[in-house]
Amino acid sequence: MAVADPIARLVKELARLPGIGEKTAQRLAFHILEQGAERAGALAEAITGVVRDVRCCSVCQTLTDRDPCAICADPKRDPRLVCVVESVPDLVAVERTHEFRGRYHVLHGALSPLDGVGPSDLKIRELLLRLEREPADEVVVATNPDVEGEATALYLKKLLSPSGVRVTRIAQGLPMGGDLEYADQVTLARALSGRREL
Amino acid sequence: MAVADPIARLVKELARLPGIGEKTAQRLAFHILEQGAERAGALAEAITGVVRDVRCCSVCQTLTDRDPCAICADPKRDPRLVCVVESVPDLVAVERTHEFRGRYHVLHGALSPLDGVGPSDLKIRELLLRLEREPADEVVVATNPDVEGEATALYLKKLLSPSGVRVTRIAQGLPMGGDLEYADQVTLARALSGRREL
Repeated sequence: MAVADPIARLVKELARLPGIGEKTAQRLAFHILEQGAERAGALAEAITGVVRDVRCCSVCQTLTDRDPCAICADPKRDPRLVCVVESVPDLVAVERTHEFRGRYHVLHGALSPLDGVGPSDLKIRELLLRLEREPADEVVVATNPDVEGEATALYLKKLLSPSGVRVTRIAQGLPMGGDLEYADQVTLARALSGRREL
Repeated sequence: MAVADPIARLVKELARLPGIGEKTAQRLAFHILEQGAERAGALAEAITGVVRDVRCCSVCQTLTDRDPCAICADPKRDPRLVCVVESVPDLVAVERTHEFRGRYHVLHGALSPLDGVGPSDLKIRELLLRLEREPADEVVVATNPDVEGEATALYLKKLLSPSGVRVTRIAQGLPMGGDLEYADQVTLARALSGRREL
């Protein structure tokens, strides 16, 4: 490449990010250069700051800069209702509904034997210890409705049932604005079996 | 948002980059967090390094970490043949052809009265001073074949002609693999008027 070494190095670093190819990385690098030292400094500081200041909440394992996190420290959130999610973006998605007033537990993944992800790679032990320490009435398993998420949900059900806690699963069915004609068989079958009184 | 402040700040900084929306910025932020301190440090250092170490070459105005840049310092490159480009990525594109053995001059933009970009906003004065200092036999104007690039080419032609230097323009016509049926009128007209002996 006919560009200066520092530019080539930045392009290489940016191209490591997911969904960013060589071409986009080059465009971003020149944009960062054009914006000047102040904006570039703010971006670099935000990157170093995030890995320096963010850790897992000791209660719910979400990523946070204080421990316990804002949700675990909020006395208005019901500690006897725990929603289990795969990742922090999933937690953010549930929060956006403004429908859930309990607390969370982030697994940081889902069971996937093919990818070598077993129970010990997830924050499952932390969930068990937490529920021993602070028993809950209900655990809502909100893992993704895919093979890994379903397997994780069943595994958690088997693990938590002996303790007598109610283990529930978020509903599966047609999404809002969906169309029966174009729904896949599994989704439609789940929507039928999950039907409720009107 | 239900994410920690350092994450929210990083998402905001990333979302300022061109072509990166809120959603992509969030995905990138969590990826950077997951990758850990070492990779994040390398990225942050590459960003601060690029604005710290890169400046304009005093000869050709390309972005470089040494002055003069590698191309201007290369005795094998013909100093009497100067290719004028709008931007550093354009210079990289010409270099990739391995067809050009002269030197470059980067304008850092093109004339665009509507956007308030006049001759004094481009490195045109630097080009004139340079050609006075080191006269060239030919200046190849390789600005983009769009309204701004064409206007810039014509302006340079008028400016440089009195000095007796040969001013040429890169050819316009059908791109390789193109199709006459789907070519726009202007491109096809230029391809016709620019026809050459076989």
